Amino acid sequence: MSELRHNAISGEWVVIATERAKRPEDFAKAEKERSVNPEYSKACPFCPGNEALSPEETFRIGGEKKWTVRVIPNKFPALFPKEILARKDDGLLHSITGYGIHEVIIENPRHNAFLPLMTDEEAKNIILAYKNRYVSLRNNEDIKAVIIFKNHGPLAGTSLEHPHSQVVATPIIPPQMENRMIKAAHYSNETGRCIFCQMMEEELMKKERIVLETDDFVAFEPYASAAPFQTWIFPRRHASSFADITENEMGDLALCLKTVLSKIYYGLGDPDLNYVINSVLFDDKKMKTMHWHISIVPRITQPAGFEIGSGIFINTSLPEKAAEFLRQVKV
Amino acid sequence: MSELRHNAISGEWVVIATERAKRPEDFAKAEKERSVNPEYSKACPFCPGNEALSPEETFRIGGEKKWTVRVIPNKFPALFPKEILARKDDGLLHSITGYGIHEVIIENPRHNAFLPLMTDEEAKNIILAYKNRYVSLRNNEDIKAVIIFKNHGPLAGTSLEHPHSQVVATPIIPPQMENRMIKAAHYSNETGRCIFCQMMEEELMKKERIVLETDDFVAFEPYASAAPFQTWIFPRRHASSFADITENEMGDLALCLKTVLSKIYYGLGDPDLNYVINSVLFDDKKMKTMHWHISIVPRITQPAGFEIGSGIFINTSLPEKAAEFLRQVKV
Repeated sequence: MSELRHNAISGEWVVIATERAKRPEDFAKAEKERSVNPEYSKACPFCPGNEALSPEETFRIGGEKKWTVRVIPNKFPALFPKEILARKDDGLLHSITGYGIHEVIIENPRHNAFLPLMTDEEAKNIILAYKNRYVSLRNNEDIKAVIIFKNHGPLAGTSLEHPHSQVVATPIIPPQMENRMIKAAHYSNETGRCIFCQMMEEELMKKERIVLETDDFVAFEPYASAAPFQTWIFPRRHASSFADITENEMGDLALCLKTVLSKIYYGLGDPDLNYVINSVLFDDKKMKTMHWHISIVPRITQPAGFEIGSGIFINTSLPEKAAEFLRQVKV
Repeated sequence: MSELRHNAISGEWVVIATERAKRPEDFAKAEKERSVNPEYSKACPFCPGNEALSPEETFRIGGEKKWTVRVIPNKFPALFPKEILARKDDGLLHSITGYGIHEVIIENPRHNAFLPLMTDEEAKNIILAYKNRYVSLRNNEDIKAVIIFKNHGPLAGTSLEHPHSQVVATPIIPPQMENRMIKAAHYSNETGRCIFCQMMEEELMKKERIVLETDDFVAFEPYASAAPFQTWIFPRRHASSFADITENEMGDLALCLKTVLSKIYYGLGDPDLNYVINSVLFDDKKMKTMHWHISIVPRITQPAGFEIGSGIFINTSLPEKAAEFLRQVKV
């Protein structure tokens, strides 16, 4: 049979199709399908030596000669910092000029690097760059949200091999975030509690969906996972904004994110995936409208007409089994 | 530059990335990439002669020996009619047993048929089957929504070549539909008007996004199209439920849908696509919380981390250019 499960944070429902459910190992790509990239590619604009091909850096970790992380404006941005922010209304049609900031975070000099293959220090440098860009971009008065995300592999929307993340700063609060803020504020009004803290507490008691616990973070498969091996990483300490992550937490997050991605990488044969940091710009402890977190979504299955037409996703993997599988992958 | 556009019906925003915009013809697949399927496949469970392989029919058009459309229960359903509807609550975790109905509409006996390649009568038979299933399934008291959709091609979520649509009847109102009902009811409260009727009227006045006008339907590219060549088909007559489509409207819808899909098929080289009928179960003229319609989404681009993390889609095609291109495709 199957089951409809409710996502208390988004209000969405998913169908967990246990009848059609595959065993976790059935989602793994065959060894031979994995692509092998070189450590250096002469033609790659992100490889060391080609720095002059890209727009001027906005942030760098490392010395003048040798860098470990670089941040540059996106050469093909979705939004533009030079655009003048303006709104236009015409009947039902509302638009805003494409004002915003779109940067690329080059995660590592090595062309074939990926978090699971990096040292702990290299991993931490990526988190440092995420925080730097988040804190820097949120201070712009016309920016309402900063979205940090990574596309890994063509099914996840990237064709560039060199490991990179992206940052987009938008002049609106994305409706998905607005929806979650409203739901969390409602829960906080009703109960006095943060819905994310509450969920984490329940998951830690139940244990069956936990993937990894570190000092400061908890990684688990959401009860209503929209896709096989979707994984959430919550900070244990209640904090609305990623901007407030501490030095210690950054090291621990690097370790947690690297370990979870390694379990997916080795356990499932390096599937394409996205991850994104969900956060509000500034602390909002009193209202408890948000608790920042990371969502990892492997792109193993393809949404079809039912998902597009209803917003209800069909997941052919049981989150409890996925968590058990990932717990057991040794990295 | 680029532009953020607001979808008045869903409340969502899209980025129209005109800087990166491709010309409409750049989205077309090369002729050689089109797959050519045989008219009959011995191994296909949906081909004539193999009827015994499938579960018992729930609807048929055509005589006992020769059918033109057949509807059967899905052999691998997402939801199950024999399941007892029950809810379970445990802290933040809410679930519903997987009760529901999941059918397959075999659109045509020919293995390689597709609406653009069918006669007008064959096209109308598909609409007749859609209506029959919609009206039949909505009467079940535990069913809250009936979703009719089609997946065309692997990128749209199907691996079965034989032309088929699907119907899923769910025990909940999908959150996407709930959201639109709330938005439309709000607009109706504020203005006394249906937001869909208002949008259609504005689009007919502006003309630039219209793809096709028939007696009873208007096909147009939404101002805030989430994907290149997304197309909406609205009935001119205000009606909440697809169940109330008249005999004449069915013939006209068959013509309209076939023509629009033909323009996409010939103009863009048969891209994979989904379409879905958005409707509420019963008429609701007074509240004006819905106006049924069809949404067609070619699967030409791949959503990435930004889309997944924000709900804001980036569309690299200008809807006005896409409409102009489709208007000019002769079929």
